Amino acid sequence: MQALVLEPDLKLNIREIEWPEPLGPRDVKIKLHTVGICGSDVHYYQHGRIGPFVVKAPMVLGHEAAGSIVEVGRDVKHLKAGDRVCMEPGIPDPNSQAARLGMYNLDPAVRFWATPPIHGVLRPTVVHPADFTFKLPDNVSFAEGAMVEPLAVGMHAANKAEIKPGDLAVVMGAGPIGMVTALAALAGGCSRVIMSDVVQPKLDLAAKLGPITPVNVAKEKLTDVVKQLTNGWGADLVFECSGSPKVAPTVFDPLRPGGRVVWVGMPVEPVLFDVVAAQVKEATVATIFRYAHVYPRALALMGSGKIDVKPLITDKFSFADSKKAFDFAAHMPPTSVKAQIEM
Amino acid sequence: MQALVLEPDLKLNIREIEWPEPLGPRDVKIKLHTVGICGSDVHYYQHGRIGPFVVKAPMVLGHEAAGSIVEVGRDVKHLKAGDRVCMEPGIPDPNSQAARLGMYNLDPAVRFWATPPIHGVLRPTVVHPADFTFKLPDNVSFAEGAMVEPLAVGMHAANKAEIKPGDLAVVMGAGPIGMVTALAALAGGCSRVIMSDVVQPKLDLAAKLGPITPVNVAKEKLTDVVKQLTNGWGADLVFECSGSPKVAPTVFDPLRPGGRVVWVGMPVEPVLFDVVAAQVKEATVATIFRYAHVYPRALALMGSGKIDVKPLITDKFSFADSKKAFDFAAHMPPTSVKAQIEM
Amino acid sequence: MQALVLEPDLKLNIREIEWPEPLGPRDVKIKLHTVGICGSDVHYYQHGRIGPFVVKAPMVLGHEAAGSIVEVGRDVKHLKAGDRVCMEPGIPDPNSQAARLGMYNLDPAVRFWATPPIHGVLRPTVVHPADFTFKLPDNVSFAEGAMVEPLAVGMHAANKAEIKPGDLAVVMGAGPIGMVTALAALAGGCSRVIMSDVVQPKLDLAAKLGPITPVNVAKEKLTDVVKQLTNGWGADLVFECSGSPKVAPTVFDPLRPGGRVVWVGMPVEPVLFDVVAAQVKEATVATIFRYAHVYPRALALMGSGKIDVKPLITDKFSFADSKKAFDFAAHMPPTSVKAQIEM
Amino acid sequence: MQALVLEPDLKLNIREIEWPEPLGPRDVKIKLHTVGICGSDVHYYQHGRIGPFVVKAPMVLGHEAAGSIVEVGRDVKHLKAGDRVCMEPGIPDPNSQAARLGMYNLDPAVRFWATPPIHGVLRPTVVHPADFTFKLPDNVSFAEGAMVEPLAVGMHAANKAEIKPGDLAVVMGAGPIGMVTALAALAGGCSRVIMSDVVQPKLDLAAKLGPITPVNVAKEKLTDVVKQLTNGWGADLVFECSGSPKVAPTVFDPLRPGGRVVWVGMPVEPVLFDVVAAQVKEATVATIFRYAHVYPRALALMGSGKIDVKPLITDKFSFADSKKAFDFAAHMPPTSVKAQIEM
Repeated sequence: MQALVLEPDLKLNIREIEWPEPLGPRDVKIKLHTVGICGSDVHYYQHGRIGPFVVKAPMVLGHEAAGSIVEVGRDVKHLKAGDRVCMEPGIPDPNSQAARLGMYNLDPAVRFWATPPIHGVLRPTVVHPADFTFKLPDNVSFAEGAMVEPLAVGMHAANKAEIKPGDLAVVMGAGPIGMVTALAALAGGCSRVIMSDVVQPKLDLAAKLGPITPVNVAKEKLTDVVKQLTNGWGADLVFECSGSPKVAPTVFDPLRPGGRVVWVGMPVEPVLFDVVAAQVKEATVATIFRYAHVYPRALALMGSGKIDVKPLITDKFSFADSKKAFDFAAHMPPTSVKAQIEM
Repeated sequence: MQALVLEPDLKLNIREIEWPEPLGPRDVKIKLHTVGICGSDVHYYQHGRIGPFVVKAPMVLGHEAAGSIVEVGRDVKHLKAGDRVCMEPGIPDPNSQAARLGMYNLDPAVRFWATPPIHGVLRPTVVHPADFTFKLPDNVSFAEGAMVEPLAVGMHAANKAEIKPGDLAVVMGAGPIGMVTALAALAGGCSRVIMSDVVQPKLDLAAKLGPITPVNVAKEKLTDVVKQLTNGWGADLVFECSGSPKVAPTVFDPLRPGGRVVWVGMPVEPVLFDVVAAQVKEATVATIFRYAHVYPRALALMGSGKIDVKPLITDKFSFADSKKAFDFAAHMPPTSVKAQIEM
Repeated sequence: MQALVLEPDLKLNIREIEWPEPLGPRDVKIKLHTVGICGSDVHYYQHGRIGPFVVKAPMVLGHEAAGSIVEVGRDVKHLKAGDRVCMEPGIPDPNSQAARLGMYNLDPAVRFWATPPIHGVLRPTVVHPADFTFKLPDNVSFAEGAMVEPLAVGMHAANKAEIKPGDLAVVMGAGPIGMVTALAALAGGCSRVIMSDVVQPKLDLAAKLGPITPVNVAKEKLTDVVKQLTNGWGADLVFECSGSPKVAPTVFDPLRPGGRVVWVGMPVEPVLFDVVAAQVKEATVATIFRYAHVYPRALALMGSGKIDVKPLITDKFSFADSKKAFDFAAHMPPTSVKAQIEM
Repeated sequence: MQALVLEPDLKLNIREIEWPEPLGPRDVKIKLHTVGICGSDVHYYQHGRIGPFVVKAPMVLGHEAAGSIVEVGRDVKHLKAGDRVCMEPGIPDPNSQAARLGMYNLDPAVRFWATPPIHGVLRPTVVHPADFTFKLPDNVSFAEGAMVEPLAVGMHAANKAEIKPGDLAVVMGAGPIGMVTALAALAGGCSRVIMSDVVQPKLDLAAKLGPITPVNVAKEKLTDVVKQLTNGWGADLVFECSGSPKVAPTVFDPLRPGGRVVWVGMPVEPVLFDVVAAQVKEATVATIFRYAHVYPRALALMGSGKIDVKPLITDKFSFADSKKAFDFAAHMPPTSVKAQIEM
């Protein structure tokens, strides 16, 4: 089949590639419709590796995907040909200790699309476990369905935040993950999000997504805004989505006593952590790794109108223009959030 | 001052009544603007008692209130004359064991407006602790401010539900408390509420409040609707708001394995409880008593537009027509939810 | 092989019975050493059914078991021939929705030993999934290993209790499950257990197991004892282990405000539940169904000396005397807790 | 009265000092019996300050105290003259926002004994709020009562750990706080503690306190021991009690996926924090500041025999030898844990 293949020498082309993909009894076969481009796809294209994962053989890119089912395995009950679906890109071993405890995302043996050596889905069809394939509500488009993957990160962060209805949250960093985290936090019970960044166009876009107060920390102090909005008490929650080492030692500054930080950003090196600043507030820090069990929840919130990801889908490309799409994504203007490829 | 006074013989009149109400250093004095009529007010009017609380002396009615501050005690920092506010009607002893543990609503010594022998607030002014007086956001009216008290019950129920973003909730009973619980559950992270009752006009009103699926259980089975919406898995949460002994043994029927019931309704007598039905799902049952710490959260959600109580305010009366208002509230048509008195 | 077989006509005999039991790659084969007799085994022997589960074909009894491994499947890494082990009697489908969420005990498709039509283990050997087979610490005997199954119920109850270090717990009912729940609650952080029953010999035995205060409710009031020990505040936790409908409406009486009830006992019919009594304390009720993920925890606590089940093993029989053992267990004196069969 | 007074020039003497200490209606007056020496007392003696707290006026030292009541205020119900008690050294404002939420330890206005400018209790008597004064069980001595203060830190850490029965915990650092944390973790439900340090005599003492596995990290790798004890899975909990910047970036190494770190040690400067190491395990980090609501729990566990602090009380001094005691405590041998002064 024709797929977007990244070669070990980092050349990127649509070309013929073939490997066996049998349909197991609990699997479904999906015709791809829309695939979003993730920062990690771009990173493999530019650098050929992320940490220990190295592109040593030709690999199809893409893992943010929606499509429609063309065939189902004999034991599949809840899906049928023609169903519009999106898919979780990671497939765990259900018998691993982590999976049995309900934390399948922490199984080190997870096979994840477009993470070497596993092929991604910028290709015509894919065979996937039915348990990790989710029907789209009628009012959710393929484009929105392909947004569930990045949204799932925000949803998982919102889960770990243990939001209480009416909480005020700070989201540090207005990149794509900051955006979906803000949407998930608001849908998940927060009354308001204060979003901080230094890039004004990103903040301008964020401010249109809901009750989000943008703070350009190049111009004003985040803690001043938080204090003013909370009578000096502080924010209930802080989502660190910038990944910035400079931001790290400040995460407890806007927090209220007894508050909670969810660390979503992934700084490459260890960062400075102000233990005593956390202790005087008895702050808790939760961390997340990808997501688990959130696809149906994200789809339910999209289906009922509580989350609208459409404003985040800023750029569209045809499959034939995939390479162009990646070159665009590699140098994305601050007014863009997500580029998608229509298959 | 002129107040709406309920006499021990259950006569209800606006008449002169006076008692000393000194302004302590941590108190504020509030001019009342809007006071809602609660079922408990009506119950005292009709029966002169609720459980152990008996009207033995003339008592001013009313506890759902908003107004504006006219004077503040010398230690009050966060409020000033002119502030528009609403008030929690219960005043606990901050040194009680329950209050010290953060559960001030469970302090048996709480003094609660319009619960004998404590006067309510259908009167020109009240002196109240500043700690239990909350500033209204600019976009929240006095009428909405007076709705915070009943909404607080729903908010507290939503808190105890430990909602995870995207949860599906069933609310049993479409009375005023069912309505505010549905609003709080949706604002607090639920993707959808399935609301059950047998009175169609109430369900019709509920269906307009958000992603709420009404189920007239006189015509269709609640479990059928839930199964259909959840692929047979069940609802994450059930809020029992009917108070009906007939509903009680069915609360676990629509629930998913590992789900949670919040019991909000208060049946007069012990009800039948299906222990094994709960056990096979490992259901948890939470209960609530009034509310604690939720006024600021309710106001934050109203201020940011995530909760709109205006559709629930169906009937308005002048203070001069207070008796008429109570007679109306005592025989409320199914199309009405909340009657309020403007002072 | 020779096994203890219950016939559909409720005759119980050691006799030859054979069926294929292939060793899968993730399975182990175990030589049984000790098998305890559970109330459910006795119930099948006496009545031929429990709820929907009916003995329609010959069935081997027994599910509280320990033994030693004689053979391991090719993918088994953490166990080897010769290992002394105990086994969880329920085998779930790892791909069921409940199992994926980490609640495998709630999977309705669980296959459970000695629950029709699944054979139990009063027989020479059994093939079992390695994931549900657990190595005994060196200082834990086979007899203690066979006690892990009933102890697991108490452990699961203690888990659901969300014990805070130093909690005071009431355990209602001093039967075998009350006993193991008390042991688990104490090992799990409780400072003291108050145990209530009407059978004095059971209470006398309980009082020797640790800091357990026995209360014979035929002679003194449970609430009086609790009040006296807690300055009138109440117990943090109540474990209902009696299964008695008479006890049901009193479960909230000894509880403190904000306390938690874990309902372990399984009354056959719905019971009376005092909703308002729960609400004024904002009590939470947790329920349990068997157990999940607790075998390794039970073994760790037994291995480190924090739980000692030896005083509960009151009666021993040889396999040849199995029928005698069941007749004894069917009419157990109050001084006995657990009868075991040595294979 | 004669008290142990630290002068601003860091001279330490028993001398006459007097100030008014009226007995309020909710207060009790206590004759001190035993006062332990805390690291913070020694730090003020040696350096005259801890962070922003500077000894600018003569200050009585000592805050780990037990004694007996000599007089009670008119509203005190649960205590009487003659009662043997221990006392929480911090007095919060019950009306502060933190206190109302149940987190009185996070109230910045807390007045804490022997933290400038508040006097400590190395003196004959003290007047203290009855709500923060706790009766000793009959089998708990004054010396053990004076240990409740440091133990409370460990208890609070164990609370925040949300221990599940049977958890395996690592305690990093075998100083006094590491010791009490290990005791609290074991009493609070852990099956075993693995304790790491580089000072062998401390580890030797720890190993005698219960099921504690000492690991001298100068000689063997902590992760090796943890892996061996957990089949490679990792510890459920890590308590960081060393305060060492070198240890900080390693706290996630021994942790299992989904595990929890409680950061008890207080490093002076921000430390290196390995975010990605936390994320791949979805580790949660809890922090503590002193303690709240744990004195009664600590006393309950001591009273029922589940916590024995006697082995930690290694050195005794008379009040007359107080200065000698402080000089000893300032250069404590590794075989000593806690020095106490008998008044």
